[in-house]
Amino acid sequence: MADAQAASQAAGKSVPRTRLFTPGPVEIPVRVLRALAQEPPHHRTDAFRAVLRRVTESLRWLHGTDGEMFLLAASGTGAMEAAVVNLLAPGERALAIAGGKFGERWGSLLTAYGIAHQVIEVEWGAAVDPGAVARHLDRDPGLAAVFATHSETSTGVLHDVEAIARITRERGRRLVVDAITSVGVHPLPQDAWGVDAVVCGSQKGLMIPPGIATLSLAPWAAPLIEAGRLPRFYFDLRKARKSAPQGETAFTPPVSLVLALDESLAMIREEGLDAVHRRHRRLAHAIRAGAQAIGFAVFSSSPSHAVTALTAPAGIESSAVVKRLRDVHAMVVAGGQDRLKGKILRIGHMGAYQREDAGAVVGALEECVIALGHAAGGGVAAALTAWERA
Amino acid sequence: MADAQAASQAAGKSVPRTRLFTPGPVEIPVRVLRALAQEPPHHRTDAFRAVLRRVTESLRWLHGTDGEMFLLAASGTGAMEAAVVNLLAPGERALAIAGGKFGERWGSLLTAYGIAHQVIEVEWGAAVDPGAVARHLDRDPGLAAVFATHSETSTGVLHDVEAIARITRERGRRLVVDAITSVGVHPLPQDAWGVDAVVCGSQKGLMIPPGIATLSLAPWAAPLIEAGRLPRFYFDLRKARKSAPQGETAFTPPVSLVLALDESLAMIREEGLDAVHRRHRRLAHAIRAGAQAIGFAVFSSSPSHAVTALTAPAGIESSAVVKRLRDVHAMVVAGGQDRLKGKILRIGHMGAYQREDAGAVVGALEECVIALGHAAGGGVAAALTAWERA
Repeated sequence: MADAQAASQAAGKSVPRTRLFTPGPVEIPVRVLRALAQEPPHHRTDAFRAVLRRVTESLRWLHGTDGEMFLLAASGTGAMEAAVVNLLAPGERALAIAGGKFGERWGSLLTAYGIAHQVIEVEWGAAVDPGAVARHLDRDPGLAAVFATHSETSTGVLHDVEAIARITRERGRRLVVDAITSVGVHPLPQDAWGVDAVVCGSQKGLMIPPGIATLSLAPWAAPLIEAGRLPRFYFDLRKARKSAPQGETAFTPPVSLVLALDESLAMIREEGLDAVHRRHRRLAHAIRAGAQAIGFAVFSSSPSHAVTALTAPAGIESSAVVKRLRDVHAMVVAGGQDRLKGKILRIGHMGAYQREDAGAVVGALEECVIALGHAAGGGVAAALTAWERA
Repeated sequence: MADAQAASQAAGKSVPRTRLFTPGPVEIPVRVLRALAQEPPHHRTDAFRAVLRRVTESLRWLHGTDGEMFLLAASGTGAMEAAVVNLLAPGERALAIAGGKFGERWGSLLTAYGIAHQVIEVEWGAAVDPGAVARHLDRDPGLAAVFATHSETSTGVLHDVEAIARITRERGRRLVVDAITSVGVHPLPQDAWGVDAVVCGSQKGLMIPPGIATLSLAPWAAPLIEAGRLPRFYFDLRKARKSAPQGETAFTPPVSLVLALDESLAMIREEGLDAVHRRHRRLAHAIRAGAQAIGFAVFSSSPSHAVTALTAPAGIESSAVVKRLRDVHAMVVAGGQDRLKGKILRIGHMGAYQREDAGAVVGALEECVIALGHAAGGGVAAALTAWERA
């Protein structure tokens, strides 16, 4: 399906399988593709209710929460909107942490719903200083909630949500976290850390195609959605809450994607959560070390294990690397977004990636650097060594 | 996957394939299941942009519009909400046509967003009198828009959208139509009839699993979404409009479902739109005639070709028929909703159903009636005769 394949086919060349190293949607495991190809049951049958209950339980386990888990037919932004319209009352003010395209989205959402808010601007590539969050909250006791990002997909940054949660909890403020690219990648034990709501999407660490977004609400945060006064209908979690005891969703669920999620969550359970987190740490360390060995620099000062943002060696355009990876290696990575357009490349490694995938992408990067006129070597060895040590 | 299968397996019986005759989600053709099982391309590649453009073009063809076609990752209600928040400004008032669970949803959505509105209450099972719409609009020139339903899924009623559109057009008011169960079933040439916006969902006549909702905007209605002032973000069609020229959506699209839609639209194009409409007419006539021959009554006085609502013969509970169809015949149909709970059964026949399916479901109905203690016969013959005559 990909561009490189079409070009190669036209030229009569052999066609490599396209590999996605994108920061979502990610590659879909064959087991999940097979689940997608099932004849889906109707959603108002006991058979489907059993699947939905199992998926919900597994997601609560994955999030480390005893609270409610809401499944929405939407992309991740839909669940971010659900957090804003359900957890805030008009007149309440909020604090948003920016620092990237997705952190900035919290501010845009708050603006769209007329919520007065402050924004902590963080240099793109850096993590927020938790002390700055504390100072904002202490200066303005009217800031009812903090909207934060765990893994910022646009910069490859991991923010210290554990420290931020300590600060919001001590001060009795709410914390809402976009964990779209961190669930299934980094530990984020919601109840233990004290995060009121966590937002996730299906096409990242959950390893299925896009189309499901989730919002998990900590047990103590349950009353918030009844008290909210903002306009809402499709994302009204009061409706979802009413349907949940029957094993149903408020509106028709994306049945086939739920079957796929059932399968991918089974994969995560089989591997074990600690093992999944460890594999992602190794993938990140291996790709970083391999890339650095051949002249790339890691863009983020607090790198995420979900996506690695790199700046190209001096004299090489990152966009040329993205293009060559696609055209020659049939590997799809992402460039920079917004103010980082043309300045970085981003390699996603969330989901079912293995050591061999880390070696493959670093090897391809190395070929690109050489083809673009630079001496390079030792990338793959550095990656595989880092894998063993991580 | 279905209940009947699990029960039969437990009893060591042979397991029939479960057949969905539900008013959505409907049975998924094997061609579509195969499309779902593809390795999906990344959405920001030329390969996927080509698919999205083709799907958008086919949907415009299917809707009979030269306007914009918006694809949303949501269930159908999401597109209904998109219509409300994009096409109305605060202070504008609206008219909603009820008459069923989904017609009533328009009123609920308008209420959720604080839009003052009037409701035309229509007896469940009947179609709205277009004259009543005209009288409301003439009495109150401040009613800026009418929210209507084409095929009302909860009652099996088809409303006369062509006549309603004539009335709204003559008076310079907007018309928004929920065509979730009529697109691909009944003709609804949007531009020719003069419908400002049409809302659809993927799990009905479009024959794919739930998870995509669409909103098509007639060419003359394009300025409305820029003028709107209601709070909106995920469903903000201004964002979708900005992304469309690049062959992209505002937020990550449900890639696998778009691939499935590409396949199902190809099936509709291959069969031809007139032939698809004709087949649905024949299915509806056949099932109605067959059911009437064995003592059922058609609930609607203006029956839709998408779903047939039936009341059971005197002395038989409709819920007993629903249960026996499921447990003995492995056929899933729907009962009544809300005030019609326990009073009707609803047989969906949108999508890839054939004459043989009409015969099969009528034959099963006949067996149920006999098993429940009534004399019956000739249902299938009546159905097949009606098919030929329709």
